[in-house]
Amino acid sequence: MRQLLVIGIGAGDPEHLTLQAVRAMNEVDAFFHMHKGEQKDQLAQLRRDLCDAHITGSYTWIDVPDPERDRTGPGYEDAVADWHEARAGLYEGLLLDLPEDGVAGILVWGDPALYDSTLRVLDKIVARGKVEFTHRVIPGITAPQVLAAQHAITWNRIGGAVQVTTGRRLAAEGLVADDTIVMLDAHSSFTTVPEDTEIYWGAYLGTPDEILLSGTVGSVGAEISRVRAAAREDKGWIMDTYLLRRP
Amino acid sequence: MRQLLVIGIGAGDPEHLTLQAVRAMNEVDAFFHMHKGEQKDQLAQLRRDLCDAHITGSYTWIDVPDPERDRTGPGYEDAVADWHEARAGLYEGLLLDLPEDGVAGILVWGDPALYDSTLRVLDKIVARGKVEFTHRVIPGITAPQVLAAQHAITWNRIGGAVQVTTGRRLAAEGLVADDTIVMLDAHSSFTTVPEDTEIYWGAYLGTPDEILLSGTVGSVGAEISRVRAAAREDKGWIMDTYLLRRP
Repeated sequence: MRQLLVIGIGAGDPEHLTLQAVRAMNEVDAFFHMHKGEQKDQLAQLRRDLCDAHITGSYTWIDVPDPERDRTGPGYEDAVADWHEARAGLYEGLLLDLPEDGVAGILVWGDPALYDSTLRVLDKIVARGKVEFTHRVIPGITAPQVLAAQHAITWNRIGGAVQVTTGRRLAAEGLVADDTIVMLDAHSSFTTVPEDTEIYWGAYLGTPDEILLSGTVGSVGAEISRVRAAAREDKGWIMDTYLLRRP
Repeated sequence: MRQLLVIGIGAGDPEHLTLQAVRAMNEVDAFFHMHKGEQKDQLAQLRRDLCDAHITGSYTWIDVPDPERDRTGPGYEDAVADWHEARAGLYEGLLLDLPEDGVAGILVWGDPALYDSTLRVLDKIVARGKVEFTHRVIPGITAPQVLAAQHAITWNRIGGAVQVTTGRRLAAEGLVADDTIVMLDAHSSFTTVPEDTEIYWGAYLGTPDEILLSGTVGSVGAEISRVRAAAREDKGWIMDTYLLRRP
């Protein structure tokens, strides 16, 4: 039966790859890659470089344009569900083109378990029922892990809990845990929390362009917003994450 | 100056090691290993096996008995703080024995950022001020990541948040998030949540002894408790984790 390997490749540093990921990459006949347009070409190239560096045999690289996601409407979850369905259709076609004993691979930044849609899209392909395949997931190092390592901090305090959430939810709900990790924040939502909250922020983690800043939100919040905007302007894109710690 | 590398080595499968961890392990002159007594000998051996498999040069392995932790008193946080202070004293002595340009390494199961005391102990050594050293942290794959990969599930739902917490807190606070990952639960605290909560449970993740169970707490909760108790009895120790998902 066709196999699909969903492989977490870490958060930016090519050396975040696990030995398990390297082994899995070497099993793959064809990599499926959703192309997100010009501004992320650099990220696509990093994926290709990982393959070139670690795959000893031959493989095919199949680039398909990522379906457009409606970012204009009010229904965030509906828009995301439509986008997943469109992706499911594309992957389904690619799987059907694969030989029956073929192995496909999808490389995922970070870990497929955390703020990544690939596994939900695969569930949709299974639900559509048009192609039979098995899949296997390989975990990868996530940006919040690299953030903590670079700042030499822990996620949790002794016996404490940590919430992993989005910028959108932080802005809507405020801090709901003593320690909170925020991902996917396009709007500097940390400016909405009390000024004495500690923030550990990082962008382009694990890459040569890495930026780290920390302090209380009151003391470094404005600087983070400034640095973030300048870096985004400069490179055309930004990937960042941060940890908030209540005093 | 002396260097100390705190290296996450993953959650059980030797192939969870990242390329970065392998590189770091090869920089180490002396590994410090806190020996926890007979029942965890198997885990200690796994660490040694990783070194033997991936280190090309020579290294020293320094075994020291882990200080006793007071598990009898009422003050959980005080007892943990005392234990950290005792560990800090031990590491401090080992660092002082190291040549001034020496590199020490501590191998940490999972990721040093998540429910591990090593970084807090290092902060105590710094605060004591008796030995100068720099330290660097290498993130590692954690058990909850392996749990999600093996069940082929995500931590969060679309746009959702996830709480990472302890069995102790779950028992005290109940479910405070739609999706909750529980670690360090010695008392099957999942039995305290509503029966229609989905549970994805795993023990000895990433090892040949791995056990996976899932379903609603009502349908598989009792079975998990039974399987867990039997496995613990059989091996003498257990490491498990689970994800709870509100319907």
